[in-house]
Parts: sequence; structure tokens; C-alpha cells
Amino acid sequence: MRTERIHGGITAPAGFRAAGLHCGIKKNGKPDLALIVSDAPSTYAAGLFTTNLAKAAPVLVSQRHLAGNGGGARAIVTNSGCANACTGPQGMADAEEMAGLAATALGLESQQVLVASTGVIGVNLHMPSLRAGVPAAAAALTSEGGAGAARAIMTTDPFPKEAGVEVTTDVGSFRVGGMAKGSGMIEPRLATMLGYLTTDAAVDPTLLQRALADACRYTFNAITVDGEPSTNDCVFAMANGMSGVVIDEGLYPALVEGFRQVAHELALGIVRGGEGATKLVAVTVTGAETDADAWMAARAVANSPLVKTAVHGADPNWGRLVAASGRSGAAFVMDRARVRIGSLVLFENGRPFDERAAEASDYLKGTTLDIEVNLGTGGTHSATVWTCDLTADYVKINAEYRT
Amino acid sequence: MRTERIHGGITAPAGFRAAGLHCGIKKNGKPDLALIVSDAPSTYAAGLFTTNLAKAAPVLVSQRHLAGNGGGARAIVTNSGCANACTGPQGMADAEEMAGLAATALGLESQQVLVASTGVIGVNLHMPSLRAGVPAAAAALTSEGGAGAARAIMTTDPFPKEAGVEVTTDVGSFRVGGMAKGSGMIEPRLATMLGYLTTDAAVDPTLLQRALADACRYTFNAITVDGEPSTNDCVFAMANGMSGVVIDEGLYPALVEGFRQVAHELALGIVRGGEGATKLVAVTVTGAETDADAWMAARAVANSPLVKTAVHGADPNWGRLVAASGRSGAAFVMDRARVRIGSLVLFENGRPFDERAAEASDYLKGTTLDIEVNLGTGGTHSATVWTCDLTADYVKINAEYRT
Repeated sequence: MRTERIHGGITAPAGFRAAGLHCGIKKNGKPDLALIVSDAPSTYAAGLFTTNLAKAAPVLVSQRHLAGNGGGARAIVTNSGCANACTGPQGMADAEEMAGLAATALGLESQQVLVASTGVIGVNLHMPSLRAGVPAAAAALTSEGGAGAARAIMTTDPFPKEAGVEVTTDVGSFRVGGMAKGSGMIEPRLATMLGYLTTDAAVDPTLLQRALADACRYTFNAITVDGEPSTNDCVFAMANGMSGVVIDEGLYPALVEGFRQVAHELALGIVRGGEGATKLVAVTVTGAETDADAWMAARAVANSPLVKTAVHGADPNWGRLVAASGRSGAAFVMDRARVRIGSLVLFENGRPFDERAAEASDYLKGTTLDIEVNLGTGGTHSATVWTCDLTADYVKINAEYRT
Repeated sequence: MRTERIHGGITAPAGFRAAGLHCGIKKNGKPDLALIVSDAPSTYAAGLFTTNLAKAAPVLVSQRHLAGNGGGARAIVTNSGCANACTGPQGMADAEEMAGLAATALGLESQQVLVASTGVIGVNLHMPSLRAGVPAAAAALTSEGGAGAARAIMTTDPFPKEAGVEVTTDVGSFRVGGMAKGSGMIEPRLATMLGYLTTDAAVDPTLLQRALADACRYTFNAITVDGEPSTNDCVFAMANGMSGVVIDEGLYPALVEGFRQVAHELALGIVRGGEGATKLVAVTVTGAETDADAWMAARAVANSPLVKTAVHGADPNWGRLVAASGRSGAAFVMDRARVRIGSLVLFENGRPFDERAAEASDYLKGTTLDIEVNLGTGGTHSATVWTCDLTADYVKINAEYRT
């Protein structure tokens, strides 16, 4: 099995068409409606949804459609600019109508359509915009439409996020494509993040759901911008079989690897494009007693405002890494702990190496950073979480988002 | 029982003297050494310490001294500008020497002295400064020295924090005084926060420890600036009996109330003086199924960067309050949840009242704010956590702290 990066996103695999356009939900005239459809009748979909108990209407509707139709979904309709969250019964009716509009325009059953929304919470969807926009989007669908769709799902994202790979196996090759958007309310436990993966491999719904979960664990689920799992987070996968490659247990690793590569690129794009972010930081925790401890400590460090501001200021304040690890809930042995910034060890066996601070500060002026904390327990578990720096622009964006 | 606010801080109760001066640890010439002593031979002390596993040397030394001497401590020596944390065996030796310097200067045993440090992590204490400074501080002790001591423990605090009350009971009156410092790394579970309470009531060590814990639960333990429990947090109480009032079970509530009032004022001062803060926000969660749920949700809302930035921008983005509650881990029923900002209900029974947004924004332009989320479970548990807004100045202060 080998993989090769290819140009394009969700429409890179065979048999997928997409479109993105402005229908009127955003007041600034930017694209706010995306439609994706698979042309193959036997297409399956899978989804992962936010763990937030304040689930938005489109999340509930998509979960219901996936469950009610055994994963047999062929289209995803998404709007940006309004999250349709905390909108009560009206919000549920609107999300259902949104799916129904797409189904009508595409000649499908309503249950074959998944729906997603992202944007401000607590405002009802402007349905007249969608009633005109969804048929227009259906009319605009093309197999080169992936880039337009990736733009139409953006909110505060500084750039669209698309990726694609071609996976070649002994029995033939298939493609995986994807798009995603961030960029606030991003947290390791899937939280206004949207992610979409498409493949032209044939995958049954059970295997598809498993592959999606496996691929997301070390990608979409291992990133954070601000530790805020949102009301609207979803990751969807659709598989249409158009490549002729049928995924069985033997080919399963190839599918996961294809999903993982695309999801990794999209996930890192979300962090790099995090609200106000100027740096991408890989936080690796080693020497953990358990896998859970490794993740808990990596998330605590990656979400620490003191760590994120120090990184922003290129301040090699490794003591904040130790402090965040020590309060994370994970087992931690200070006398044997170690902190590494880039290739520089700044703390080891209870001893600071402060003379290396200037060199570490130079390293931290870069934009792609690698930091490690060894918890000193003698354990062998590790985890990596990707985060960004915390900047005055994050505050500015979020203090002014609605007003 | 009645209480009355009085002027002064830790030296307001009878028999306490204090001093604050510059000994050379801070490079900017500001006060960096505080000494507090009780003149009564039978003085008891109690302490609450950070739960961070990366405990600083002075935390470990103070815990050891309190335990080793049955609470019989008469002095506290504190430096600012250096946390003496992550400093290995040298740090432990330095903290012990610091206590010993105070003991020698005051004619006490080393175990009768508690020690605290606050400032940058991972740097060793400059002992020559302390060797000259501690005897100088001992020579400068006066019963009006509380204000000077409160200044000497500051790091990034914008103002010193002192408070005092006189508690009058049927059998006589006693006084409680206190001082505290913030202002980053502040989290509900006691974490670089230092708090000091003094009283001239006579309290045995067991009752003193219990009163300190009871008084801190709804004060020092119910505040947050950035959700970061530090390596150095301590709250100390000292009781010297000089008022002649002896605290027994009957008078216990009066002592707790005295401690609580002083601790409340100091704790709110820490939040109001939080790094970069411009607003003090009381976050109350009601309608929780359990007490633990109420605290968990209140802390999640109070620590949410999206909530804190919205408050900063006077943006009545109540959806962020719902989202933070929904992901807090507490039971949450969206259809029956309610959000109140000041006296304005903005969300209730699944219905947004967005028409009140302009009025809510006006309210949020104030500097002392009151926000409530009812979790909608029908439960009757509640909790209040005090927090501040997240500002560009927080980022600036923490990106530039060391460099």
C-alpha cells in the first residue's frame, strides 16, 4: 500500500460533486451555503458528533437521519453564519426543512441528507435565504466544486482547508478527499469544528463508522484552539464505491491510513488557522503511567493560557509547562520530569538549564514548534496534541464576534 | 454576633507585627520581602496548599513545619519576584535557610516559621539578598506594618489587597485581618495565589485548620483568573489569642464568619486585579442536579475563554454560556435551561430572547457583573464562582513576563 497526495478536496474522489455560494445568511456577501452530493445510489455515510450536551438542531437531525436510514446518506447541506443552536423547536423544524430542501432539489429522500450549521448561537436560520439558495446550489454542483464548498463553510477561518490522497493497494487504488473549518470553540473532544471526508472506495456503514473514529482519534480529536467543544461539531465521511475498490478487513488499514492523512492535514490546518493564531505547536507528553494520563496532561498543557501566551511571546518559560503538567490530574514526578523545547532540554531530574533560555527563545520565534514534557513516572505512554498560541487577536476576534 | 469592617490588614488584630521592604530579588527596586510575626508565645497556624503535583520548595517546607510542630508557628516569611519552584534540592535548601534566617532574627525555632515565595518559576533564590534582607525586615517590624507587607508580596498585581473585620460576640470581640496577592495562575482549586489571615482570637490548631478550610471554600476556592492552579499557592491563618476570646464549638461560626468576610474581600480583590482584567463577574449556576455539578458548570463557564472575551467586549453572547455549561460534564437539559445576564433573561425553555440583546450589552459595559445559568435539570443545587474578563492585556502581560 502506498499513498500520494493529490490536488483537491472533497470532490477529488470519483462521483462526488459540490458547490458553494452566497444565499443571504451572512450579511457581508461571502459564501454561506455548501452542498455535497454523491452520484452513486449506494453511498454510505458515517458521523462523529459533539459531546456537548447543548447539541445544535442540525446535529440532532443528522444523528437521526444517519440512524434512521442505516447510514444510507448521499448528500450534506451546510450553512455558515448561523449555528442554529439553542433555537428550540423552531430550530429543529428549520434543520429538517433544510435537509428537505436539499432532498427535493436532488431527488432524494430527506433521510438521505445530512445537515450542518456553523456560526452564531441562538439565532434562527433565515429560511427564505435557504429556500432560494439550496436549489441554486443543487443547480451549481460540479465535480470541481470542492474548493467552493470549502470556502462556503468558513466563519472566522483565515483560509479554506482542503486535502486529498490517492491510496494504491494490490487490488487497485481509491481516493480520499476532505475539507474542514475551524476555528474557535475547538477542543480535543470534538467540539464549531466541521470536517468532511469523501472516498470512492466501497465501504459498508459499520466499517465506515469505525474507520472514521480510528482516523479521527489522532487528528481531529487531537487538536485544540481554545478548549471549547462547541454545540455544532461534526465530522462526516461518505463512501460511494465508484473506484471499484471494496474495503474489507484486509484493506481496512489502507482506508484508515487514507482517512488519517487527509484528516491530519485538515486538523493541523484548523489549528494553524485558529482564531488569532500565529504558531502551530505540537505538545507531546511522554513518560506517562497510562494512555489516559498522557492525553490528560497533553491537553492540559495545550490548553493552558499561560503556556499559549508564553509561546506567543517566544518566552522559554518551561516552568509553566511543568506547572500545567503538575495540575493536569496525571501522575507526575517532578524530580524525574523533563522538559524539551525543540532540541533543547531546559529541565531534567529536578535541575533547570536556564543557561539555554536564550537559544530556546530563538527556537520559539519559529511558527511550527515541538515541545515535550516527560512526566517522570517511568511509564511508557505518550500522546501528542496540536495547539496554537494565544494572542491579543484571539481576544479581539471573540470580544467583537457578534457586536 | 455582629461584624464590622475595620481599617488595616494582617496587623489589625492585636499582637501581630509586619514589615515589607526591598531586599534585592526584584530587579526593579520594588518591595520583595515580607515578614509577619505574632508576639504571643502560644500562637497557632494553619495552611491550605496548592493541589498541583509540581509543588514549590516553600510549599513543601511550610507543610513540613506545620506538621512537625503541631501547628505551632509564629512567623511567615515571604518573598516575591522568584517562586523557588522547580529548583530541585537547592530550592529545598534555600527555602529551609529562608525560614532559618527568620527564626534566628526573631529568636524562634526554624519549625515555627512558615515560608512562601511567588514569582518566576525555575530560578533559584538569590540568597545573599535574603541573608541581608530578613534581619533588616525583622528590625523593621511594627504593628502598623501590614500595608507594607501587602505591597511586598505583589508580583503582577495592580494594587495591594488587605481587609479586616471586628467580630463582636456575647463573650467579647476579636479581630480578623488579612492580605493576599494574585494575579495569574489563579484557579478555584487553590492554586501563585497567596492569602494570609490573622486573628487575635485563641483557636486550637484543629479548629483553626477547619475554620480556614470552611472560610476558603466560598472565597479563595471560588475564584478564577485563568484556571491555572500554580506551584506555589498557599493560604495561611495565624491565631494568637491576644483578644482574650477563646474559640470553642459555640463561637466557631463567629470565627468562620470573620475569616469568610476577610477572605471574600481579598479573593474578590484578586479577581478584580487579575492580569489584564477590567471586570469582576459573578457566575452563578443554579438548577444543578448535585453540588458537584453546580461547581463543575460554574467553573467551566467562569474559565471559558469565549465567555471571558464576550464579557470583555460587552457582547451578550449568551449562547457561549449555554455551550460552556453543556460541555462542562454537569447534567444539562437544554429545553429547560435559562440564562440571565443582570436582570435580563436571554434564553429560557429553549427560546432565545434576542430582542433584549441591546439592553444586555449596556449592562455588560459595567465593571461588576452578575450572570446566571440554570442547568434546567430541576435540581436545586447552586454555586457561585467569581471570574474576570479575558483581555489583550492578559496576553501581553503573559507573553512578556520573563523576556
